[in-house]
Amino acid sequence: MPLFRKIVIFGAGLIGGSFALALRKANAASEVVGFGRSEATLQQAVQLGIIDRIGQDIAAEAGDADLILLATPVGQMAELMARIAPHLGAHTLVTDGGSTKSDVVAAARANLGGRVAQFVPAHPIAGAEKSGAGAALADLYQGKKVILTPLPENTKDAVARVRQAWEICGAVVSELTPQQHDAVFAAVSHLPHLLSFALVHDLAQRDNRDLLLSFAASGFRDFTRIASSSPEMWRDICMANRDALLDELGRYMEELESLHEALAEADTERLEQTFRTARELRSGWKEQ
Amino acid sequence: MPLFRKIVIFGAGLIGGSFALALRKANAASEVVGFGRSEATLQQAVQLGIIDRIGQDIAAEAGDADLILLATPVGQMAELMARIAPHLGAHTLVTDGGSTKSDVVAAARANLGGRVAQFVPAHPIAGAEKSGAGAALADLYQGKKVILTPLPENTKDAVARVRQAWEICGAVVSELTPQQHDAVFAAVSHLPHLLSFALVHDLAQRDNRDLLLSFAASGFRDFTRIASSSPEMWRDICMANRDALLDELGRYMEELESLHEALAEADTERLEQTFRTARELRSGWKEQ
Repeated sequence: MPLFRKIVIFGAGLIGGSFALALRKANAASEVVGFGRSEATLQQAVQLGIIDRIGQDIAAEAGDADLILLATPVGQMAELMARIAPHLGAHTLVTDGGSTKSDVVAAARANLGGRVAQFVPAHPIAGAEKSGAGAALADLYQGKKVILTPLPENTKDAVARVRQAWEICGAVVSELTPQQHDAVFAAVSHLPHLLSFALVHDLAQRDNRDLLLSFAASGFRDFTRIASSSPEMWRDICMANRDALLDELGRYMEELESLHEALAEADTERLEQTFRTARELRSGWKEQ
Repeated sequence: MPLFRKIVIFGAGLIGGSFALALRKANAASEVVGFGRSEATLQQAVQLGIIDRIGQDIAAEAGDADLILLATPVGQMAELMARIAPHLGAHTLVTDGGSTKSDVVAAARANLGGRVAQFVPAHPIAGAEKSGAGAALADLYQGKKVILTPLPENTKDAVARVRQAWEICGAVVSELTPQQHDAVFAAVSHLPHLLSFALVHDLAQRDNRDLLLSFAASGFRDFTRIASSSPEMWRDICMANRDALLDELGRYMEELESLHEALAEADTERLEQTFRTARELRSGWKEQ
């Protein structure tokens, strides 16, 4: 018998669709029902075998679901939680795919009411320049990290079952507090995205942008790859993790002030030492 | 008969070594002589078939060379030009592999004296995170851009022959003025390198850097790939193109001030519009 009889996903794009495909491939889900704001995406998800059917009524689907995944942009989660809260079954577990956690946890406390213990927050770390149901892959999470940020209210069993779902998708699961999570990702993910968007936005303002881009090469290509990410999603992430991101951005601007000074003063030693320290750390780093 | 009887390269690492390997593979060079600061690199270059022999005496080698490539860090070029100038044959052409051009041209004017017309500056755009003779590849320049920044003193024939040498290496050759070149590369290459070094340097200062790095993923990986570049080379490039780079850095810091303000004011529209403009430009860009 599959681990989960019925799974409901809100958002059948890259994150939600890949979750569903992976659990179906592992025979861990008997039935997958999809909700979403885009009818076209949902119909595509049915055609691609991501979901069995399109949900019509949250009240009817949430009560007997074993597991619900919230895979919408984080900016929509509070409202969605308020809509599902009255209908959750006593055994229904809820997890999410949001890239920020403090805000999602706050939304859960505000909107899930007495059901908050059934929500085990998660952040799957999987590249997301592409989006939509067509981008979903059964092996998207294979070997990728998923971070759970369990609540004090969660039972051990609830955490274990949500962990198991992500592990069945192939993920390597770890746990942090929501605050730890957000501080970490402001530094290693959200700030780099902001910086990459900023560079390309600056170029886009210029009359000679075509000439400039015609000489851009592999360094530019890799540095700006993440500037192709979803504007809507990254607006939400930036807002959701605003405090930690403002700290990181302020810190980085000080770093640039320092480099500007070193360059203006022709302080070659400081420049080289900065580059050397960076290269040592970066060369010693292995993606895990 | 090969196009060039004798080629002399100063610096037998990635840039110089790949140039020599490509010309030899195309039977365009009868003999390649190498000079360099590292005896070990030169010996390795002999073993790898990059050069035929290690040069001992510039006076003896420069006079009958058809083509000399200066493939040292740009910071060493002025001194090197002063050393070769008295010994250049009347037919000897000189080109270089430096990533900046205004400074190299200034060095040539100051140090090559009456031989400056024989110098046709070049910038091969080939990824350079790796370095050393062991990294040299016969096809490094295949399909890559090389930009010539000819001097008013150059004859058409001199420019044509240097262009031919780079084209034999497989490069797509174009021409800019030295000032155009440096403004373009400050924007699309030098600034991104500085920003990538800065991000990793900032992380390196922190007590929790190991935790942070353990959650870094593909976005971080690509954004910081260029922070593995040579500290010595990038110190030289930053210094050589200091004025244009300071302009770019100042402009970028204003861009970050603006984003900081948008974030602090929760101006979601401005954030999203910035990201959207960036994504449109980046998604429409194709590496040429």
